[in-house]
Amino acid sequence: MRLRNVKGAKDIINNSKYVILDYDKYRGKFNELFNNSNDICIEIGTGKGKFITELARLNPNINYIGIEKYDSVLVRALEKVENDNIPNLRFIRMDATEIDSVFDKEIDTIYLNFSDPWPKVRHTNRRLTSICFLKKYDNLFKDNMHIIFKTDNRHLFEFSVKEFTTYGYLINDICLNLHDEDLEDNISTEYEEKFSKKGMPIYKIDVIKQKNNV
Amino acid sequence: MRLRNVKGAKDIINNSKYVILDYDKYRGKFNELFNNSNDICIEIGTGKGKFITELARLNPNINYIGIEKYDSVLVRALEKVENDNIPNLRFIRMDATEIDSVFDKEIDTIYLNFSDPWPKVRHTNRRLTSICFLKKYDNLFKDNMHIIFKTDNRHLFEFSVKEFTTYGYLINDICLNLHDEDLEDNISTEYEEKFSKKGMPIYKIDVIKQKNNV
Repeated sequence: MRLRNVKGAKDIINNSKYVILDYDKYRGKFNELFNNSNDICIEIGTGKGKFITELARLNPNINYIGIEKYDSVLVRALEKVENDNIPNLRFIRMDATEIDSVFDKEIDTIYLNFSDPWPKVRHTNRRLTSICFLKKYDNLFKDNMHIIFKTDNRHLFEFSVKEFTTYGYLINDICLNLHDEDLEDNISTEYEEKFSKKGMPIYKIDVIKQKNNV
Repeated sequence: MRLRNVKGAKDIINNSKYVILDYDKYRGKFNELFNNSNDICIEIGTGKGKFITELARLNPNINYIGIEKYDSVLVRALEKVENDNIPNLRFIRMDATEIDSVFDKEIDTIYLNFSDPWPKVRHTNRRLTSICFLKKYDNLFKDNMHIIFKTDNRHLFEFSVKEFTTYGYLINDICLNLHDEDLEDNISTEYEEKFSKKGMPIYKIDVIKQKNNV
């Protein structure tokens, strides 16, 4: 997701209490930043932040970090929370390709929501569910590798199911029409609400891989 | 699939040149029956036979056996071919639960099309894609285990993707809306045509497991 440039975005980000600017120094010890030993979950491509913000409010005993590449998008997420106090929520502005240099054996779950489908074959490795990225994620996890992925893009979903299982992930749960089910536990993203209202199926998969199966 | 009883069905089946009545004696040597060493593929739950009959006509160098439980249904399949000569096509009337006592290391591909979804949890093991059945199939295959499965039933498909991958099958191909794709190679079943015309998505998965991974 890319939005029009927001004037002053850089300043807003640099001054927000929610943004981790000096993330380099927390590698392997993000728990110190949160000042507790609770699980840490991340959302890569956090967009306008609805999903991770709701999760953080719902689960105060889990720490959440939203990762977003674009200033103009991250600013929208910050607007949602700037006047609140959500101690278990942070954001990092960075490109997902660097993710393995930021975290080290400390993540519980990775959320991927409505990731860029990169439909062209030559861009396959840019998809956040490609084996190229799954390899990057390996060393992020504290214990078992756990990824939860949602999308409205059928081809990306088909590709992702193949990639996950080829790479040794097992399927905890798979749903091919999320909004046709009992949605009690579902937290939707901005994209999800928009596409679901158009009657398009939302796909979801929850996969896990034992740490010793790397 | 069950149909109204067809008068004289038993006689038609017993007298058809396409039906293997004495299948017990061919275990491990169905190639002798076909009098060639070509691959043998089976469809479990062959229904009214459109799918396997078309496959057999298209691929004279592959042998096909359609397996159907109900006399009244098998008769409909036989009607389609009785006046033709398709030497690479046969049918067996039997219950799929006995499949592992009929074939022995001689099958190339198993086709499962629009299998009974058995929606109740207590009937899980009756689903033809349950691990209970996948175990039965292991010893049927000559070489790698290869299953191609189509259904319009979303819950059965979700269940099946989980079962296949949990049991060690890898995904060759997965499609969540078959009739939205280029269908050049697709052979549809009677069910498939009916449900697809109603605009319902048809799901397909093609999975493989190396023989030595049992």
